[in-house]
Order: sequence, then structure tokens, then C-alpha cells
Amino acid sequence: MHEFAVASDAHAQLIPITPEVQAAVAALGVTDGAVLVHVPHTTAAVTVNEGADPDVAADLLRRFDALVPWRDPADSHDEGNSAAHFKSSLVGCSSVLPVVGGKLALGTWQAVFFCEFDGPRRRRVQVFAVRDKAG
Amino acid sequence: MHEFAVASDAHAQLIPITPEVQAAVAALGVTDGAVLVHVPHTTAAVTVNEGADPDVAADLLRRFDALVPWRDPADSHDEGNSAAHFKSSLVGCSSVLPVVGGKLALGTWQAVFFCEFDGPRRRRVQVFAVRDKAG
Amino acid sequence: MHEFAVASDAHAQLIPITPEVQAAVAALGVTDGAVLVHVPHTTAAVTVNEGADPDVAADLLRRFDALVPWRDPADSHDEGNSAAHFKSSLVGCSSVLPVVGGKLALGTWQAVFFCEFDGPRRRRVQVFAVRDKAG
Repeated sequence: MHEFAVASDAHAQLIPITPEVQAAVAALGVTDGAVLVHVPHTTAAVTVNEGADPDVAADLLRRFDALVPWRDPADSHDEGNSAAHFKSSLVGCSSVLPVVGGKLALGTWQAVFFCEFDGPRRRRVQVFAVRDKAG
Repeated sequence: MHEFAVASDAHAQLIPITPEVQAAVAALGVTDGAVLVHVPHTTAAVTVNEGADPDVAADLLRRFDALVPWRDPADSHDEGNSAAHFKSSLVGCSSVLPVVGGKLALGTWQAVFFCEFDGPRRRRVQVFAVRDKAG
Repeated sequence: MHEFAVASDAHAQLIPITPEVQAAVAALGVTDGAVLVHVPHTTAAVTVNEGADPDVAADLLRRFDALVPWRDPADSHDEGNSAAHFKSSLVGCSSVLPVVGGKLALGTWQAVFFCEFDGPRRRRVQVFAVRDKAG
């Protein structure tokens, strides 16, 4: 397993982590197969989306805030961050990504993002080898 | 593959299944790699979220009902449970979980939940070995 | 890796692809384990849901459009398809499916769907072997 840290600096944020995941693929020695990118947190997530235009991530975060508002008087969880927990389950705390020839095999416009839903915080991302032909 | 049953007793419910999944990991003999937790149903799901405070699950279910109301006059599906099908696709019917040293490698606050969206029913959860170094 | 094309003919569409994924499982020679179904696009997704009654997919698409409207004056992304990107992250661009005895091990009512959120377009679906006992 290979782990790296991500420091968010906003309450909700999409942070591109494709280079860090690619470095983990190399460190794990995966050549063909897949890796599991896992976030060991319950108010964060991992997603794959368009990486070329940062406006996409901004629109996504704003639309998500509108859909799942931070405050809800009916919430019972003490910490007041149930919205972040809900978003985490809607996006998912992990993603399985294909690897071909030692490289992440993503589409032209795809990038991997760490999703912060209750920041700013220091977070961790873990990458696990799921399969390697040589394994 | 290892299978276990879950009996929901409410219309919508998050049922913690971490111990059952951990037992499946042991039964499958997975030591390092990952397992696929799969729900063979179309009105249920699997998620990983905070397991310490049950209020989180309660808030998540209530917010989900508000976002995806059960009744929608425009629904055409005969059984009237399109809301449950929609929730299932938003959360996802499976989750890939990391295993290290024979144990589920989850974060401190993470627990695995079976998500019932059209209960009460008797349901099944299936666990598959995805990779084992020894395999 | 095995790839096939999908041609959507509507703006939003759920296209059943279980037979194509099953053919990929055979072509890859996976007998026991799992496959990763990956869509290399950022305005599309993969989901597993009820395949018997097409009304389910229709209800799901209509409800999704109501929840995530196409037009949002606050969107900043030039292409105007931020709704499609958001839907893609909510459903997810990939799915890991179990394989037993060379066959996709899905539930009775489960089918695999390519989700088009910004069509019509010609799209690609990629299937990767994640694990094979014989591997």
C-alpha cells in the first residue's frame, strides 16, 4: 500500500491527485491491472472527472452545495457535518482505476480528484494494488 | 465467494455489516489485496460511512428521502419503487474494500453499511476475493 | 483490456450493455474474480440497475434531470454541460463486477447500463480483468 497526504484549504474542494496516484502506481510496481484509490475518511471522497478546465470542478461543488445544503434543522448528528457525510456516500470513498503498461489508463479528459466536503483539513489517500499480471 | 443474509426491518435503513464482511474476508482467506462487496439487488446499495454515531446514518436517510421523494406522479414503473432504484444507482450496489494482514483496512471512523431503500426485506450480500498476494 | 463502442441517440440515455460486458469477460478469459468496467469519458457513467422493465431506466433519467437541471445560470464551464459532469461523478465512471465460472455473477434483476448524460455521441466502454484464479 502507498499513502500520501492531501491538505485541503477550503470547506469544499476538488483537489487533482492524478500525479500522486500515478507515482503510487509506480511505487507499487503495478504494470497491468488496476489500483484501488481509497480515502479513509467519512466526509471526503474520490472521483474521476474532467481535469482540463477547473470551472468544471467549481460548478460541480456549487451545484452539490445547492443540492445538499450544509444546514438542515432536522439533522441530529452532533458535529453538524451530516451534509459532508451524505456527499461522501453519494460520490463514494474509493475508486478502482485501470493500469496499462505501468500507467493509469484514463480517458483524455479524465483526472482523479480528492473531494473535500468538510475542510480545511489534512487528509490521507491510500493506493492499493488490485492486480498485477506479474503478481 | 462468501454470502450472508441481511434482514431489514424498515422501508429505508442503513445496516452496519463490517463484522460480517470481516468474517467473509477471513473465510475467503484474503490476506493482502481487496474484496468486492456486492449486493445482487436493484433497490439496495453498499456504502462506507461513519459508524460511531448512528445519528449520521439517520441524517443521511432522512436527507436522501427529502432529495429523492418516494412518490412522483410522473413515475411509470409499475411497482412504484423507482425512488429506490434511483437511490441504488446514486450510492452504488458494490464497494471494493482494501485488506491488509487479513483485516479490512478501513479508516478509524469508517464502517460498511448495507443500504435498504425498499424494505423491509430479506436481502443478500456477497463478498468476492479481488486479489491476494498468495493467490 | 477489451473495448467496445456504444452509440447513444438521445441527450440522456441508459443503454443496456450486459451482453457486451459478458462477451468481454469471455474474450479476457476471466473465469473467477472480477472485471472493471470503465468509461473513459467525463459526461457519462456506468451503473447496475433493473434490466427487466425499461420504465425503471426512464424514471431514473427523468428524476435525475429534475434533480440536476441542465441549465444553471451560475455555471461557469464554457461548454455548458456541467450538469452532465456532475451526474457522472454522482453515478461513477466505473463499476467492478463479480465473475463466477466465466459468467458475470449479477442478481436476477440486475443489468449493466452505460449512462449517457450529454449525447447523442459515440462512446467507448473498456473492460479490464481484475483477478483470475488462473492468473
